[in-house]
Amino acid sequence: MADQASNKAYVDYPPPLTPEQEEYLVQTVKNWTIEHGLTVRPSTAIVPEETNPKNVLATNAPVTLFPSPFPKACFELARSIQPVYNELYASVASDEQWLEEIMRELIEVDDFLANLWKIHLSVKEEGYVQDLSLGMFRSDYMVHIAEHAPPSLKQVEFNTISSSFGGLACLVAQMHTHLATFPSPKHSVAYPVHPLFATSSGDSSIHTIGHPPPNEAVATLAAGLAAAHAAYGPSRSEPRLPTCIIFLVQDNERNVFDQLALSTRLDEHHHIPSFRLPTSKILAYTSIPSKDSNPCRPLIYTPPSSPFTQFEVSVVYFRALYAPTEYNTPTSWTARHHLERSAAIKCPSILLHLSGSKKVQQVLTSRPPDTDHLKTFLPTHSDSVLQNLRSTFAPQYSLSAPTSEASDEPEGIRLALSPETAANHVLKPQREGGGNNTYRTNIPPFLNSIPKSQWKQYILMELIRPPTAAKNTVLRSDGQVVSGNVISELGIFGTCLWRNTPGETKPEILQNTEGGYLLRTKGKDSDEGGVAAGFSSLDSLILYEEY
Amino acid sequence: MADQASNKAYVDYPPPLTPEQEEYLVQTVKNWTIEHGLTVRPSTAIVPEETNPKNVLATNAPVTLFPSPFPKACFELARSIQPVYNELYASVASDEQWLEEIMRELIEVDDFLANLWKIHLSVKEEGYVQDLSLGMFRSDYMVHIAEHAPPSLKQVEFNTISSSFGGLACLVAQMHTHLATFPSPKHSVAYPVHPLFATSSGDSSIHTIGHPPPNEAVATLAAGLAAAHAAYGPSRSEPRLPTCIIFLVQDNERNVFDQLALSTRLDEHHHIPSFRLPTSKILAYTSIPSKDSNPCRPLIYTPPSSPFTQFEVSVVYFRALYAPTEYNTPTSWTARHHLERSAAIKCPSILLHLSGSKKVQQVLTSRPPDTDHLKTFLPTHSDSVLQNLRSTFAPQYSLSAPTSEASDEPEGIRLALSPETAANHVLKPQREGGGNNTYRTNIPPFLNSIPKSQWKQYILMELIRPPTAAKNTVLRSDGQVVSGNVISELGIFGTCLWRNTPGETKPEILQNTEGGYLLRTKGKDSDEGGVAAGFSSLDSLILYEEY
Repeated sequence: MADQASNKAYVDYPPPLTPEQEEYLVQTVKNWTIEHGLTVRPSTAIVPEETNPKNVLATNAPVTLFPSPFPKACFELARSIQPVYNELYASVASDEQWLEEIMRELIEVDDFLANLWKIHLSVKEEGYVQDLSLGMFRSDYMVHIAEHAPPSLKQVEFNTISSSFGGLACLVAQMHTHLATFPSPKHSVAYPVHPLFATSSGDSSIHTIGHPPPNEAVATLAAGLAAAHAAYGPSRSEPRLPTCIIFLVQDNERNVFDQLALSTRLDEHHHIPSFRLPTSKILAYTSIPSKDSNPCRPLIYTPPSSPFTQFEVSVVYFRALYAPTEYNTPTSWTARHHLERSAAIKCPSILLHLSGSKKVQQVLTSRPPDTDHLKTFLPTHSDSVLQNLRSTFAPQYSLSAPTSEASDEPEGIRLALSPETAANHVLKPQREGGGNNTYRTNIPPFLNSIPKSQWKQYILMELIRPPTAAKNTVLRSDGQVVSGNVISELGIFGTCLWRNTPGETKPEILQNTEGGYLLRTKGKDSDEGGVAAGFSSLDSLILYEEY
Repeated sequence: MADQASNKAYVDYPPPLTPEQEEYLVQTVKNWTIEHGLTVRPSTAIVPEETNPKNVLATNAPVTLFPSPFPKACFELARSIQPVYNELYASVASDEQWLEEIMRELIEVDDFLANLWKIHLSVKEEGYVQDLSLGMFRSDYMVHIAEHAPPSLKQVEFNTISSSFGGLACLVAQMHTHLATFPSPKHSVAYPVHPLFATSSGDSSIHTIGHPPPNEAVATLAAGLAAAHAAYGPSRSEPRLPTCIIFLVQDNERNVFDQLALSTRLDEHHHIPSFRLPTSKILAYTSIPSKDSNPCRPLIYTPPSSPFTQFEVSVVYFRALYAPTEYNTPTSWTARHHLERSAAIKCPSILLHLSGSKKVQQVLTSRPPDTDHLKTFLPTHSDSVLQNLRSTFAPQYSLSAPTSEASDEPEGIRLALSPETAANHVLKPQREGGGNNTYRTNIPPFLNSIPKSQWKQYILMELIRPPTAAKNTVLRSDGQVVSGNVISELGIFGTCLWRNTPGETKPEILQNTEGGYLLRTKGKDSDEGGVAAGFSSLDSLILYEEY
């Protein structure tokens, strides 16, 4: 019954299109995306390199033609707990000892995490010269449909580094709103009549406002960077230099226009200069004065186009270096170490980067009678607030060997190895950057194919059961239009700026904001995300309430 | 001496770039253009059709990397006389008898002009049902350098139909301003130091503000359409229909984003809906009720995507049907006739379209002791205003046979047939749409290769002598970067809305505005324009004063 009710909003949605309607809608989307920069650089699968040797071409980001229905209560819960999640991860990243305990056994088997940890230890030994940290977060959720219950919200992951798509997500919401309301909210020429587009529905059991809510992701994220830039204060160089923000980017980034939305906002609204720095150029274009000449370790950026105009970097915003595959040159780790020891505010610091590992997410879900980590990290919050947070945890399990020899085989291993119980789970690696998840009955053979000593690199998570009737139509970046059943993932953006005092495990929070959302929608037969890779599409949402 | 002085601003401009500077500047421009929609659909020469079957790709419009220097006095003169030019062409289009006299002999040899005239006569016989006309004009100029004189402004042509590039020109000015002033006006990282970028120049004999003036083309042009929409008033249908503006466009338009800038402004600022109608669909998607059911002849637009939501068209804005090659189907002329007889305000009407012919431009340049047409058409303006207008006329000549047998061979024919004098001239066809100009010593053999009876289809115009030292660098749509000597053409936008009273040859002018500019810059070895065709580039300007 609950399941039926929860699917009601999805039945007969999106409305079917005549060929003329589809032609108009697709053509309008093709034009709107390019006009407004809702774009990506095309992959070589779409445009061969020899056709585009100067890399000038662009195409639409993959987008849904319609916004997807989303339960209003779930959206509001996600927004309301974002500041609490921000504070939680600021607290985790501030508690080095707790993190070390969590990381210890992973470090043994995971070179990537081990290298990150080593950098932290090395800078700690030298002494950190920056006590401020910035988090630009995105908490990802799915709607979960259980029997005899209203739709609920389950967290998929919490991103502490390189949280992307804020820029393009704002544009998608704007585009869907245009499509739903042009030339007037009552008479869209792009969308056929449908109860979800009606401001007051004929079907009185469903209520919507007929278009997506405004998306404040760009304003929120840019304001986070601006707050950190301001908190950095004046230049520590002698003579003083102008300060700037660095966007650390991949060398061949295709999702560049998502990032430019933030730097343009920083320039036009906050009047803060920012520069794009490819990871391969970190050591070429930035430097730190020797200890003797300046013990403050300011990070000096020398624009290659203007070598006589140096800048001091207030914030390094990582849109790169989140995945092991990006550390593929002899100097990659040197470069990361170089940035970490500088006086620039890192977004994120190494400790915050590590706090985003799946292992931390899994440990935080433990409840009494085990240690109540939430209560420890968030001592000032009421039980009801913590209960709201906990309600978003999907059951998840460590695959670590039991800590005490007396214990039985851990529950996670038992659930993962049995085909019957595995069928309800996903196996996720600890690392950042997506990819390589193993699903359902593939889990037991996969685990049996790798050494048992590596099992602790994985987390087992109960699968979330999204609405089964959800459908949408996608315009891919190659222009193909594809329709079918879909699964959507909601991301909520937030930022947090805090100060750490040596010896203190509690952060002093200076700014904590929530704002903006992302909906990523993928075909039901694809279990992996990643819009820029072409597997899933950028979407926005129509909030609905059922009575 | 004057020539040297006039070239001073162009010497050592643009400043030379190091490879690092060029890389940064080109990359910034490649990203900025896509982020802001300063784009075109690529030609099949850049992307083969099989690579882009769904026509999703976009590339930067061809743009100069730097704004071009332009004498401030010339720019201000061009702006100041635009309202006078607007009024002049409104007056010309209102004087059917005068136009008929000018057109008579052309119509004998030019099917295109003859067909346009026939449509006018046919609608006149049936009776026009709309007494309002809208002009969206662009007056094009070049700077002319004569010896012993300051730079002067010479008109190339006055466009009365489909005046394009207002949308993209605004973006180019915005981009060049960003490049010149980021991160601060005193320290651009994109442009090397140069006196033209300095707000107060080290070289005290040249003064500039260091970046292009703001470009109001989109606001001006959209406000022109909005004024006409408002003047159309309520629907003449029974029951009343919502009204809309139609953008009449070519079926395979590559310059679509220039046009969308205007429709987006109409939607967001004026809240007026507009729809794109390809010329091949005029008769399919628009209709006029029969005389019996509604003698007002409202033009009814039925959106193919939403056939139950009809609109009444207030304004038909022609971004197509200006050139003979566009009338290539059996119904092209029927469609143009259909629009002309409707109650929609045409931008332009047939008479205004014809007023833009080169022949009219040439006749208007005649001076006393010949008829003083300016004085006749602009009786309320002072001699000094008319003298300002006249100062922009380049000498031009008819190639018509003399009207009286007693006359000698006309001066135009004499100048065109002699290689010595032809070398200083350009031969232009009467028709709209560019292309097919014949230059210099090619003129005599060209004229001798066609029947003498066709000569009257051409106008001979003295060549304008632009600054010889002008240089710039262009990013083409295929990503190639090309530097060299250039020639620039300034366009000033204006709009005019007027009412004609039957029997009156003077228009009642309801709105007359000026605002926004276009600079098109082409390599010196290319004598033809047309940015979308890849021959020339969109540019903006740095105004300078010399002391």
